[in-house]
Amino acid sequence: MDPYGLRRVASPKGVLPQRADVLDPALPLGEDELSVDVEALNIDSASFRQLEAATGGDPAALGAAVARIVRERGKMQNPVTGSGGMLIGRVREVGPRHPAFEDLQPGERISTLVSLTLTPLVIDEVIGVHPEVERVDVRGRAIVFATGLWARLPTDMPERVALAALDVCGAPALVARHTRPGDRVLVIGAGKAGALVCAQAHQSLGGSGEIVAIDRSEAALSSLSEIGLVDRTIVLDATRGTETLQKVEQAGGFFDLVVNCASVPGTEMSSVLAVRDGGTVIFFSMATSFTAAALGAEGVGKDATLLIGNGYVPGHADLALDLLRKNRRLRALFESKYLR
Amino acid sequence: MDPYGLRRVASPKGVLPQRADVLDPALPLGEDELSVDVEALNIDSASFRQLEAATGGDPAALGAAVARIVRERGKMQNPVTGSGGMLIGRVREVGPRHPAFEDLQPGERISTLVSLTLTPLVIDEVIGVHPEVERVDVRGRAIVFATGLWARLPTDMPERVALAALDVCGAPALVARHTRPGDRVLVIGAGKAGALVCAQAHQSLGGSGEIVAIDRSEAALSSLSEIGLVDRTIVLDATRGTETLQKVEQAGGFFDLVVNCASVPGTEMSSVLAVRDGGTVIFFSMATSFTAAALGAEGVGKDATLLIGNGYVPGHADLALDLLRKNRRLRALFESKYLR
Repeated sequence: MDPYGLRRVASPKGVLPQRADVLDPALPLGEDELSVDVEALNIDSASFRQLEAATGGDPAALGAAVARIVRERGKMQNPVTGSGGMLIGRVREVGPRHPAFEDLQPGERISTLVSLTLTPLVIDEVIGVHPEVERVDVRGRAIVFATGLWARLPTDMPERVALAALDVCGAPALVARHTRPGDRVLVIGAGKAGALVCAQAHQSLGGSGEIVAIDRSEAALSSLSEIGLVDRTIVLDATRGTETLQKVEQAGGFFDLVVNCASVPGTEMSSVLAVRDGGTVIFFSMATSFTAAALGAEGVGKDATLLIGNGYVPGHADLALDLLRKNRRLRALFESKYLR
Repeated sequence: MDPYGLRRVASPKGVLPQRADVLDPALPLGEDELSVDVEALNIDSASFRQLEAATGGDPAALGAAVARIVRERGKMQNPVTGSGGMLIGRVREVGPRHPAFEDLQPGERISTLVSLTLTPLVIDEVIGVHPEVERVDVRGRAIVFATGLWARLPTDMPERVALAALDVCGAPALVARHTRPGDRVLVIGAGKAGALVCAQAHQSLGGSGEIVAIDRSEAALSSLSEIGLVDRTIVLDATRGTETLQKVEQAGGFFDLVVNCASVPGTEMSSVLAVRDGGTVIFFSMATSFTAAALGAEGVGKDATLLIGNGYVPGHADLALDLLRKNRRLRALFESKYLR
């Protein structure tokens, strides 16, 4: 048994797959491994942009660069940006001791929810490059470890809509766990993670409490209001702590739960200032600074629980997709954004 | 009322005191402010080292540099490192609407527990510079806001011992809150924060459960073992995830609570690998990378609660000092380290 894929690490020996320079995708399938016939790689944005610049915007050259990286490293981890992405494909074989052995059948379409930076991969052929969605269609094979997360691709909604939701599915799942009836919830950032968080909070509160959303973009806030997911919106740059403080006071005072889904750095202090003593802040923004959050709370003597938004909560993929299924208007919003 | 000291911000207008370039320490004392006759500044290590290098190791020149910064900025925030420190002094006046009005008397000796980067300060005279403890003795005056944390300096233990404990007092207080009887607790890092955390876990567990400490230094671990605060120690470099995984398996498997007090970067993955599903990791290390923790847990599908170690928990100062009072051998350890 090798739940973390340690035997696949070719160099340097002894590190975990994510930190490895080279993985070995060619070993026979382990008893607790899952193999996938890969159809497409959704390349991380930073990585795709770097490759685009390095190949002069030529899609064929970009595809060749991806193939070369995967040939050299046994995984699609951009050596410049260090980042990966996710993949889509059909289940090829499920090892008898893989946790999904009873659940997944060969031929089912899945998406990995773990990074390509730790996924052993072989590319046989690059079929096409789609810069507009940062996607590379390939024929290849990948390995998913026993601890590696994946999601069955739904057949009742467009793939791009499902992938957009799966990309941030940890956020609504963790919010479900930390929302109590009657809570006043503040959501910072009205992008796709913020929208799913509002939808989940709305469901968890069941009509009690209150949901307030903050964003710099009035348009982003309007689309949430129109769906009926928020009680109130505030147009506000959350990097400005003192303004946040004023607006929070005007909006009825401190919140029980603050959920940070901002896409920009510098919003930690606003999150801390907006929560009540004894309340909870969940940071999902990848731009979060650990020290800004910790020292910010100490600096104003705020006794709040500060959570790092763990991207994994059991059942998170189904939970996010179900939010889209239950809320027709939320799904229409996702379709308008991701089906262009 | 101005609990965050916004009116003291001279420039740029509208930011919080910590982000201000210049504070105004000269305004009359506000109703919810506290003033302190300052005796000494304990300068942040990074800041002190930078000033030492910039002044060629001349203590008098370093003292003059500190005085100049405070004259220009109205606070002791090193413009190069951005960091501050803490101060010690005697209470001068407590505003009638300051939370400590009933509790603190003029003349009592206190230490601030908020950073000098947000503390309005005037220096009348630099009295001495003590590079060995990164301390500058001064005559001056400082302001503490209503939200600003402070601690009464104890009279029953040496000042340096008390300050060493107060510096990390949030850690044992948060551990007290998250330790359940019977828990298996792993402490990463056997420095002063790790020692206080072990002492608190020992008390919270009341003989149940287990406490294991990890450190690269055998000497640091021995001093904890000798005090009887830990059930087991493991000499280990926690930046090596796979070794941590092996040792954790040998030590009886995953832990309910992992407390990261490491002083080096790169220990997030070990923390995540060591905790059980459903368990909790508290990150106190200021070297913690938010993304390494969040993506690390997702990468191995670990459903753990990941907490940012908030430096403030009500009662944290007394709790830490009481640990030293109750445990003679722990206090002796602190004396041997901080009374040199």
